[in-house]
Amino acid sequence: MPFELTILGSSSATPTSERYPTAQVLNALGRFFLIDCGEGTQIQIRRQKIGFSKIQHIFISHLHGDHFYGLIGMISTFNLLGLKKDIHIYSPSQLKDIIQPQLEFLKAGLQFNIVFHPLNFKKPQVIYSDKKVEVTSFPLKHSINTCGFLFKEHPKEANIKKEYVKKYNIPIPEIIKIKRGAGFQTSEGEFIPHEELTTPPPRPRSYAFCSDTAFHPPVAEIIKDVDLLYHEATFTEELKEWAQNTYHSTAREAAEIAKMANARQLILGHFSARYKNVSPFLKEARAVFPNTVAAEDGSRYEVGE
Amino acid sequence: MPFELTILGSSSATPTSERYPTAQVLNALGRFFLIDCGEGTQIQIRRQKIGFSKIQHIFISHLHGDHFYGLIGMISTFNLLGLKKDIHIYSPSQLKDIIQPQLEFLKAGLQFNIVFHPLNFKKPQVIYSDKKVEVTSFPLKHSINTCGFLFKEHPKEANIKKEYVKKYNIPIPEIIKIKRGAGFQTSEGEFIPHEELTTPPPRPRSYAFCSDTAFHPPVAEIIKDVDLLYHEATFTEELKEWAQNTYHSTAREAAEIAKMANARQLILGHFSARYKNVSPFLKEARAVFPNTVAAEDGSRYEVGE
Repeated sequence: MPFELTILGSSSATPTSERYPTAQVLNALGRFFLIDCGEGTQIQIRRQKIGFSKIQHIFISHLHGDHFYGLIGMISTFNLLGLKKDIHIYSPSQLKDIIQPQLEFLKAGLQFNIVFHPLNFKKPQVIYSDKKVEVTSFPLKHSINTCGFLFKEHPKEANIKKEYVKKYNIPIPEIIKIKRGAGFQTSEGEFIPHEELTTPPPRPRSYAFCSDTAFHPPVAEIIKDVDLLYHEATFTEELKEWAQNTYHSTAREAAEIAKMANARQLILGHFSARYKNVSPFLKEARAVFPNTVAAEDGSRYEVGE
Repeated sequence: MPFELTILGSSSATPTSERYPTAQVLNALGRFFLIDCGEGTQIQIRRQKIGFSKIQHIFISHLHGDHFYGLIGMISTFNLLGLKKDIHIYSPSQLKDIIQPQLEFLKAGLQFNIVFHPLNFKKPQVIYSDKKVEVTSFPLKHSINTCGFLFKEHPKEANIKKEYVKKYNIPIPEIIKIKRGAGFQTSEGEFIPHEELTTPPPRPRSYAFCSDTAFHPPVAEIIKDVDLLYHEATFTEELKEWAQNTYHSTAREAAEIAKMANARQLILGHFSARYKNVSPFLKEARAVFPNTVAAEDGSRYEVGE
């Protein structure tokens, strides 16, 4: 099952001629989570050939325009396409008031509900959970209320070894228990431990999105051992003071968070338009955390592979 | 002096992977008029290398999202770029209420004034005039209040023939009168008519933007003899009923307006995404009005050349 991230936009503040503002889609086992929604997101979604009807959950990290100005266009397009399923928006509570006057001007009344889920900026909180995936929001440190998001598979069951099932003719209810951690008592009274009966399950995959934020070490604990980490890097160390004043991070700071969190891979993004290319970001981050890449619009990343 | 139209977006309702929603820039003798502002307009403006600081007048034909969802992003970017000049928006009056809640969330307070000029949907009205150019709004026939816009140079003065100035030693105050239409009385009492003294001025150039509208013949009189006419053509005749039901035009209807108006050239746009290419639109329109082209994002047209 896929666990794949697609970058739709990677610029900061304003779009450039090459980069759209922040937006990403995470395909987590067939669930398409839209993460931030800068202007032009719907255009990028079309270019990436992602079906609009697959998107039902939208996560908005904060209310700076480059992270949500594409939302009203998305909603309008959902409506024009005749989609009927509810749309869930996880965002600062004020978003509802901001877009309500616009919703009233949509060509026809909305044919679906928009369910707003206000974010908690005080502490981490599970905001979505289903059979296989869980999403946790966590506060970041920006000039306005901002959250990051951690997307994680639930732990999987162990794989039982077929030869044992056959040898002891293990009944199905017992198999289910074994997969979940139990051992097995044979008819001869012998106890076979769980570890012998099974091979360990694949590690649950996880992706963390650290939107606009100053260097904020408490994040590392929350996203501990994450497979893939996106962390903003608006500036390089040369402009560290600017980063501090605007509550943004440098590439080195992003890398330090990745290192502290024991992440497997780091993606940098949200580059200031004043940089002509991403080399200085990569150089700086890789000195601290070697497995670092720079986001490009349209690039895709398999999580945990 | 330039009088040049740049198409920024030419799709209808939703963007496609190749066309942005409606937006155009008219460079009228150095004034950069932005006409409609669909999502992604600021991205297209960057790509066309048009300076944001040149744009101070924005004309919004109506409040369907594909004609104004890019506005808040534009305003936000003007602000982030530190621009200070007032922005004038000519639009349905409700636009102010729609974007006000968004303006309040801009990163910093706005550093310039936004001056709203409500459109008149009852009759044509001059909404902008300066030394050289005049803009008139005129009502169209759409499912909600919608205006078109006519951009026109003021009539120019005639050119006085130098040999007459020399021959009769015509003083400057007389030259000014002659350029504006007067004749000249020589010291011998001979009257030389205006037509003999001058060569006629270049014809004032004009561009008309007919945004979303059903077939609406009264428009032809208002834009009579226009050099360049943009007229929406969402459908072809095959889907005439759809066009009528949604208050849009077919390509043939657009061409009929161009013919009635005695336009020089017609640009079709606002194509429904269901058409794979523009050939059927062109074929249909050219049968009625041969000098027809199809809008493409990024294409430029010299007006009256």
